[in-house]
Amino acid sequence: MRVHVIGAAGFAGAQLAALVDAHPTFELGQITARVDAGRRLVDVHPQYRVTRELTAYEPEAVAAGDLAAVAYPHAEAAPLVADLIDRGLRVVDVSADYRLRDPALYPRWYGFDHPRPELLAEAVYGLPERNRDAIRTARLVANPGCYPEASILGLLPLAGGRIADVVIDAKSGVSGAGRAPTDSVHFSAVTENVAAYKVYGHRHTPEIEQELGVEVTFTPHLVPVDRGLLATCYARLVDGPVDGDALRQLYADFYADHPFVEVVDAPPGMRAVQYTNYAQVCPMVDPRGGRVSVFSVIDNLGKGAAGQALQNLNLMAGRPEGEGLA
Amino acid sequence: MRVHVIGAAGFAGAQLAALVDAHPTFELGQITARVDAGRRLVDVHPQYRVTRELTAYEPEAVAAGDLAAVAYPHAEAAPLVADLIDRGLRVVDVSADYRLRDPALYPRWYGFDHPRPELLAEAVYGLPERNRDAIRTARLVANPGCYPEASILGLLPLAGGRIADVVIDAKSGVSGAGRAPTDSVHFSAVTENVAAYKVYGHRHTPEIEQELGVEVTFTPHLVPVDRGLLATCYARLVDGPVDGDALRQLYADFYADHPFVEVVDAPPGMRAVQYTNYAQVCPMVDPRGGRVSVFSVIDNLGKGAAGQALQNLNLMAGRPEGEGLA
Amino acid sequence: MRVHVIGAAGFAGAQLAALVDAHPTFELGQITARVDAGRRLVDVHPQYRVTRELTAYEPEAVAAGDLAAVAYPHAEAAPLVADLIDRGLRVVDVSADYRLRDPALYPRWYGFDHPRPELLAEAVYGLPERNRDAIRTARLVANPGCYPEASILGLLPLAGGRIADVVIDAKSGVSGAGRAPTDSVHFSAVTENVAAYKVYGHRHTPEIEQELGVEVTFTPHLVPVDRGLLATCYARLVDGPVDGDALRQLYADFYADHPFVEVVDAPPGMRAVQYTNYAQVCPMVDPRGGRVSVFSVIDNLGKGAAGQALQNLNLMAGRPEGEGLA
Amino acid sequence: MRVHVIGAAGFAGAQLAALVDAHPTFELGQITARVDAGRRLVDVHPQYRVTRELTAYEPEAVAAGDLAAVAYPHAEAAPLVADLIDRGLRVVDVSADYRLRDPALYPRWYGFDHPRPELLAEAVYGLPERNRDAIRTARLVANPGCYPEASILGLLPLAGGRIADVVIDAKSGVSGAGRAPTDSVHFSAVTENVAAYKVYGHRHTPEIEQELGVEVTFTPHLVPVDRGLLATCYARLVDGPVDGDALRQLYADFYADHPFVEVVDAPPGMRAVQYTNYAQVCPMVDPRGGRVSVFSVIDNLGKGAAGQALQNLNLMAGRPEGEGLA
Repeated sequence: MRVHVIGAAGFAGAQLAALVDAHPTFELGQITARVDAGRRLVDVHPQYRVTRELTAYEPEAVAAGDLAAVAYPHAEAAPLVADLIDRGLRVVDVSADYRLRDPALYPRWYGFDHPRPELLAEAVYGLPERNRDAIRTARLVANPGCYPEASILGLLPLAGGRIADVVIDAKSGVSGAGRAPTDSVHFSAVTENVAAYKVYGHRHTPEIEQELGVEVTFTPHLVPVDRGLLATCYARLVDGPVDGDALRQLYADFYADHPFVEVVDAPPGMRAVQYTNYAQVCPMVDPRGGRVSVFSVIDNLGKGAAGQALQNLNLMAGRPEGEGLA
Repeated sequence: MRVHVIGAAGFAGAQLAALVDAHPTFELGQITARVDAGRRLVDVHPQYRVTRELTAYEPEAVAAGDLAAVAYPHAEAAPLVADLIDRGLRVVDVSADYRLRDPALYPRWYGFDHPRPELLAEAVYGLPERNRDAIRTARLVANPGCYPEASILGLLPLAGGRIADVVIDAKSGVSGAGRAPTDSVHFSAVTENVAAYKVYGHRHTPEIEQELGVEVTFTPHLVPVDRGLLATCYARLVDGPVDGDALRQLYADFYADHPFVEVVDAPPGMRAVQYTNYAQVCPMVDPRGGRVSVFSVIDNLGKGAAGQALQNLNLMAGRPEGEGLA
Repeated sequence: MRVHVIGAAGFAGAQLAALVDAHPTFELGQITARVDAGRRLVDVHPQYRVTRELTAYEPEAVAAGDLAAVAYPHAEAAPLVADLIDRGLRVVDVSADYRLRDPALYPRWYGFDHPRPELLAEAVYGLPERNRDAIRTARLVANPGCYPEASILGLLPLAGGRIADVVIDAKSGVSGAGRAPTDSVHFSAVTENVAAYKVYGHRHTPEIEQELGVEVTFTPHLVPVDRGLLATCYARLVDGPVDGDALRQLYADFYADHPFVEVVDAPPGMRAVQYTNYAQVCPMVDPRGGRVSVFSVIDNLGKGAAGQALQNLNLMAGRPEGEGLA
Repeated sequence: MRVHVIGAAGFAGAQLAALVDAHPTFELGQITARVDAGRRLVDVHPQYRVTRELTAYEPEAVAAGDLAAVAYPHAEAAPLVADLIDRGLRVVDVSADYRLRDPALYPRWYGFDHPRPELLAEAVYGLPERNRDAIRTARLVANPGCYPEASILGLLPLAGGRIADVVIDAKSGVSGAGRAPTDSVHFSAVTENVAAYKVYGHRHTPEIEQELGVEVTFTPHLVPVDRGLLATCYARLVDGPVDGDALRQLYADFYADHPFVEVVDAPPGMRAVQYTNYAQVCPMVDPRGGRVSVFSVIDNLGKGAAGQALQNLNLMAGRPEGEGLA
């Protein structure tokens, strides 16, 4: 089973290429880059030890029946993903271009008109904890954004009308901002600093609301960490107070058959999941009221991007869900 | 005007001793330590260049009319502060022992019965933005905790019944935990990590609620930063939506005569206030509802401890509020 | 094949326990702790996901033919290791207690008289790149210290009289200092800081000199990094200048059959080897003289401790050298 | 006395503008920028609280008798500095363009032919510890590079033929690389990493050799720190071994009248000098031979750039050397 990684020079694409390269069943197909074509992946990302050369994408070198993952910037991924589907491949899109079911949200939040609304309608949101069976048979899987991944896993057991007044205060490591060097990811700007950004305007907001079915106040913060994302989720329980043990049991039951979500007893730190495909989720009940707090951590390049993408590829290929992710 | 710093080996006390030492008007009195007595302050904290030796506290070496600041752990400060008051000094207590007006809160939150409730009743909460005039004449000033300092400044213009459903998600640098080496401040535990701690149980909760007059859900997080504290405050406006510009103007008016609070247009980072006595506050209105978000940053050892203490000492001594704090 | 890890609560021991636990062939035997006995390993080190409980060491629960790794502080390891050998186990000692061949060095550098000089004489220095065959059959393998591991790998191809005037300027991550919380590993002391320590007096000095056969000026520095160690090695070539390409070829040839040492073209960063058992070595020749510089990086808990220990255990057990280390 | 800061948007220029702005005697003249012209300095660097707007440089707005500091990239500074001199100003050049006395070194190390060799001959190397009197009367002062500043201060008491076999292993914070965002200063590339760069080829090498009068092997390393630079200097004493106390006394005597160099007893950390204009220097003698190690730390933007520039401006203006630097 051949897997192409289109856009393998960025943080998420490179890690996914490394995961596919080390996968016991998959064969690494094309690994492509635009700016970095001609360089070996190991020279761009020494820690991955993938000695293959990055190449320009060649449409002729893919074949019907192949799998592909696309890690392009938004708006640029959409037509390429569509072309791959048209060529008979099955695709995991790591970009945001097939995540929002309502096409009208694209011009508003992403600034472009969606070129293929019928594919958007067909795409499956790539969260196995919600859509495992649909992912197995999907042609097109939209890999979740990193903030939505942590946020949705934190509140999914309470989705469907059980929560209101939702506030998600999220803290993300810098790798989530991607590999492009900018003022805001300069070491001297990030170290010893924490700040919120894109308040009320972050593009992951409608994605979270779509999947949770509730309006949220979502506030992303940048923290001086490379990899890791913590979503601290606050919500009011619509049906009134619940006991803390009961809530934890509800979560434990909900995630019992989901191997990559660990329900834990104390607020988890990023270190517990770094360099893994695990999420850790800790639900707690405010003893003085009906509000709950849920702490949800992932590695933004693991369960938040490349690891999640491989998990989806495994499902699509009929492989064990965690193959190559241990 | 002589100022003693009792407990000058810890992070807050040492910085306060350095500030007093460099102050154009104050004379540094005793600088005391328990474990570190006999060492020069500069050998414990090289960055402060205070070459005086730390000594054991000598009650005979203080005099009525002196000022003192006490930076002891809670429960240990209370009797010492009382003794200093009894000796005719005026005191800034950097500990928590005189912050809570209700004596019943001490056994519940701090685990001890307050030894001097009548002094507790007399103590002035040392937030100049709220109690400037009372601080000027107080015998005993209770310096705010670092989390309350940032949280209260963030919401003070809305205190008095205008907000409800308050969530304060706070991120603190490690120096806020003090100088004692523990597992949780080990570099290898902190770097590349963020986690919440003491959820629903942090001792600064009743202090915040006392000053804001509203129940809050307060969640502290430890971030891999030395100095800096960001309180992200969420609240619902009781009287309904307000315009963003109007809210910012309300804050600007409220803080117009408070030289150490800067109302800013974008969510501030910790770096903007590090090594200063400034707070930066940025109020924003969620365009989709009546909820506001306020971002409030301080240096936890500056406006959150030693800087605030010096500001209070200046007021008590009739000096310009910012003397020695530029 | 059962492997006991004695002292599994520290950084090195815990990682080794996790490696053994995940090893395809080895069975994890006792995992012991002193202070932390009774806690699950996962609760002490969440990132390792080893749910077994740490127990007090029980001599009766080991058996002749077992393998054991001991990660105790120096002086405490020596008698335990000897006892295990006497019980018929084969042991990798992760401490320093069997590294120095000359017993007279122990009172001088470590402050104790060696209790079992005859075992010291028998012990094999656990650097496969030097002693692979002897390790395979050894009863007792002395796992190298982290600084020696990087330093020796950096200069081993030139050992045996080819270099003089050796200066090793080493930069270590904080995990190398161990798990005990002290002032010097407090986050607030380490972040945004670099300093040398134990100049001319670090205990790894005689170990480096023993293996390289030359006197060295060794200067350790602490850097604000969790895992990683860079040894920058300077030396004068006794036989005069050599061409840079020739030197690199000499290194490439020397390490051709050593799977965990990568000879690279540019000075490597710690990130290239973090969380792996690899070392990267880059030799360079000063164009203006006969001096060489060699840059050698390891993960101090990987090739510098636990990874190296597992590599040695694999060799002792007749397993593939890299099993469980991919 | 008016001081213009030409190039005030970069790290060094911005800090210098802030220092001049707060200086009790100097008046801040033009503060210029190219890309950032039109923005307020406080909006580019919030921590400095300088609310003046950055403007394009206007040659007509300078006047004979003014002072100016130029913080331009190398090659771009040279003609501008010359023009300012021609207009009758006295200039501190923070760039490298007037540091090397031999014009032939410019094409070789910096890739351009020096446009004004006669000014190069006149320029005074701006290290007060060496050239204080000449700086007082100079028209043109070449502010030292950050690596040379620390390295030269570390070995200056031994310059003049007393040392040989000099190795300088330097560790620099990221702000030394400047404000331009590049792959190598991306937070995700720097955090948890240390690596050497520009081995044998760094442009500060000839500057160090010029001032020390001896060939050096200079190796810069990037460390995950914002501000701070440690030069670990190794040298052989030409006249044979010296006693450690004697060496320290020699340093103490040498620096007795230099207020910004502190000779200390233990290897200093960067934290001891961060946000100051101090250097700390600790000389030590290897007990086993004639080699010395000297540890020298500065803040690369303080004594290594902007602080040093202000110290030079003070000297040129006949002001107390440390005015505005406390």
